[in-house]
Amino acid sequence: MALLQTDPGTVAAAARRVMARCDELARVTAADDGIERVYLSPEHARVNRLAAQWMREIGMTTRTDAAGNQVGRLERSTASGTPDPDAPALVIGSHLDTVPDAGRYDGIVGVLMGLEVVRMLREPAPDQAGWRSPLPFALEVVAFSDEEGTRFGKALLGSSAVAGTWDPQWWSLTDADGVSLREAFVEFGLDPGRVAEAARRPEELVGYLEAHIEQGPELDERGESLAVVSSIASARRFQLVVEGEARHAGGTPYDRRRDALLGASEAALAVERLCRAEHHMIGTVGRLETYPGAVNVVPGEAHLSLDLRGELDGERDRVWGAIERELDAIMGRRGLRWHAREVHSAPAVFCAPLLQDVVREGIVSTLDRGVDDPATIFSRAGHDAMAIGSVTDVGMLFLRNPDGISHHPDEAVSAGDVAYGTRALAESVLQLAADRA
Amino acid sequence: MALLQTDPGTVAAAARRVMARCDELARVTAADDGIERVYLSPEHARVNRLAAQWMREIGMTTRTDAAGNQVGRLERSTASGTPDPDAPALVIGSHLDTVPDAGRYDGIVGVLMGLEVVRMLREPAPDQAGWRSPLPFALEVVAFSDEEGTRFGKALLGSSAVAGTWDPQWWSLTDADGVSLREAFVEFGLDPGRVAEAARRPEELVGYLEAHIEQGPELDERGESLAVVSSIASARRFQLVVEGEARHAGGTPYDRRRDALLGASEAALAVERLCRAEHHMIGTVGRLETYPGAVNVVPGEAHLSLDLRGELDGERDRVWGAIERELDAIMGRRGLRWHAREVHSAPAVFCAPLLQDVVREGIVSTLDRGVDDPATIFSRAGHDAMAIGSVTDVGMLFLRNPDGISHHPDEAVSAGDVAYGTRALAESVLQLAADRA
Repeated sequence: MALLQTDPGTVAAAARRVMARCDELARVTAADDGIERVYLSPEHARVNRLAAQWMREIGMTTRTDAAGNQVGRLERSTASGTPDPDAPALVIGSHLDTVPDAGRYDGIVGVLMGLEVVRMLREPAPDQAGWRSPLPFALEVVAFSDEEGTRFGKALLGSSAVAGTWDPQWWSLTDADGVSLREAFVEFGLDPGRVAEAARRPEELVGYLEAHIEQGPELDERGESLAVVSSIASARRFQLVVEGEARHAGGTPYDRRRDALLGASEAALAVERLCRAEHHMIGTVGRLETYPGAVNVVPGEAHLSLDLRGELDGERDRVWGAIERELDAIMGRRGLRWHAREVHSAPAVFCAPLLQDVVREGIVSTLDRGVDDPATIFSRAGHDAMAIGSVTDVGMLFLRNPDGISHHPDEAVSAGDVAYGTRALAESVLQLAADRA
Repeated sequence: MALLQTDPGTVAAAARRVMARCDELARVTAADDGIERVYLSPEHARVNRLAAQWMREIGMTTRTDAAGNQVGRLERSTASGTPDPDAPALVIGSHLDTVPDAGRYDGIVGVLMGLEVVRMLREPAPDQAGWRSPLPFALEVVAFSDEEGTRFGKALLGSSAVAGTWDPQWWSLTDADGVSLREAFVEFGLDPGRVAEAARRPEELVGYLEAHIEQGPELDERGESLAVVSSIASARRFQLVVEGEARHAGGTPYDRRRDALLGASEAALAVERLCRAEHHMIGTVGRLETYPGAVNVVPGEAHLSLDLRGELDGERDRVWGAIERELDAIMGRRGLRWHAREVHSAPAVFCAPLLQDVVREGIVSTLDRGVDDPATIFSRAGHDAMAIGSVTDVGMLFLRNPDGISHHPDEAVSAGDVAYGTRALAESVLQLAADRA
């Protein structure tokens, strides 16, 4: 039974606003051509200011937290009609940072849909001084500052700070220009010594909901708009270094070569072979660099990134073990050395049954095509919900992503699906409120 | 029968000077750590000034030619004792540019040995005003400005200008910062419209001799100091582009991926396999880059350099044909596209029989260990002599290169071998003079 009282025109206007703001945010980019917005950059500051402005427009109070996340809050009222700053909050969130040469929806659409949900649900304050949450909890929208890990190679920095799982070892991570995370914090105007202040306590939170494009083709293939997310993949990321010997490309016969690129090439193919042999594993070498990288020098060193994802932690770790053994064999045959540094590890995160239920109810009551069993999808992509899952219950809603193209300028979502999704998300919030009442 | 009249102390002093100047030139670098000196850079200008100063110290007149090569000339005398600027010249040369993270001897040692040969052979001018060549030809030393092709991906730019084989299409080649060769010429103070003035006519030249480290392990394995070069490898270089589709690394299942890096990895391994199956072929992928190059994005594009070398042009071209067919098959299987742009092509160049003979005679008369049949080596590495071979006869002398390590900071040559080599080179010049007299 639908709890949301709204008209189709309001929902369509919300979706149009989301689409137009995705376009507006896409123009905030560090790249001459295409979209690139990384953690603690001038572009990060600019989209935070835009998000804060939009939050204030709908009556939210705003702050930038100690890790650069942009937070908006709509208080509920106390019994006497005053704002209740101590009420626990339902957080709706996603991220505004991007990969290089990104699309304009990954993360972004979830933040903007959160703002539209607040706009739909808010009510005037009893004294007409602004707006309040009419629900048994406050409403927050969080625009996370780093989910992709583009700049420092470590994903989920923003949401890890909120979850209270910030690791002090991360301070020495550096970007491609050698700037450390600590230095970037200071340059952005943040105090590294205060990052713990971004952490939320479980008792402050009712739960966390995130809407996101699927980043995969499953909904598109099924011809459906929305899905409930059951769990988020278990992931590990490694930086691999293969060491051989740089020698002259002409003068060095094959039996004197220790060519790091050829070892790295075999490694990339072995990752594909070992992961394909499993049901739910995906392994990606997204970056490969050779040193010295000259046309006439045998590569002496190669650096590879490795991103491993599986539905279950055990499967993922077993495959990594198999990759390690295979790389030992490959590098041994070629007279190369190799080592790996783990730069990210996240266990599989399961969406809370109650939040799966309210998201499902939101979808069912929104779609008018008699869907009573919407798709339930396991997410291979990581999301801020993974980090937040360690401090509160999380639930996720997926939107159809045409052809499953993401992390690419062609990434798309339809305004119609954004309308369905925004309505479903608002309905999910009301269902959760009804459950708690 | 040795023609050179000199004492061991003079030769040892020459070798010491060569080694010290190699160290001095190594300090002229664009890299914070290691040696990198590319065409038309501030470092190029600095080493040209040093070379010109050393040329003038031994009585040579100097000029920078229209392609940035540094040229020194020691005139012979006319019958009346005046300098004879129209006399043909024997050119001794090599290059002063480097690969990235280079050693300090590749090319450089040949230029400096040429200066020592001039110092050994010169005689005071009849009027005591400076120095003259006592031979039936003038002596020139040329420090070529670009042999490695590091900056613009096209090798032998300096010596091609001297050979008169400059291709106007090269003007639009760009470096990693997008600076065109034409712009770099102007910035260096050269006039692109006058590059043809660097070209020498065959009648101006007696021939060309080049001493160089072997850049391979053969002399080291044989325990010998010096070798005659019989020919220089046939070489082609390509820039390969593999095109797939950038997609999200988590959400995209294997059967929806068109991963350009995996295609490129198979390509690099296929080059190795196809070249190893031949007797004299070497193929090297020295550089591989992925785009967008993010840890969580399936690579949509990969760029590879390919350097192919063989003893004979026909063998080289046949193997390239086999590589093309194999890449068609690999990319077809993976749903990828690929194309290649040829950026360098040089036919095998055979050293002139007379110049091979005088170099052999130089070696035999120099080494005091009863060597009467010095090693004769086919050079897989390219050299300025390849380009110069199209305008005059060329001959080359190789110096032992410990462990064959070149294009690497550990690149080495011993002062003893430089002493032998310098003496052998001077003796070769005298043998040539005797032959012409």
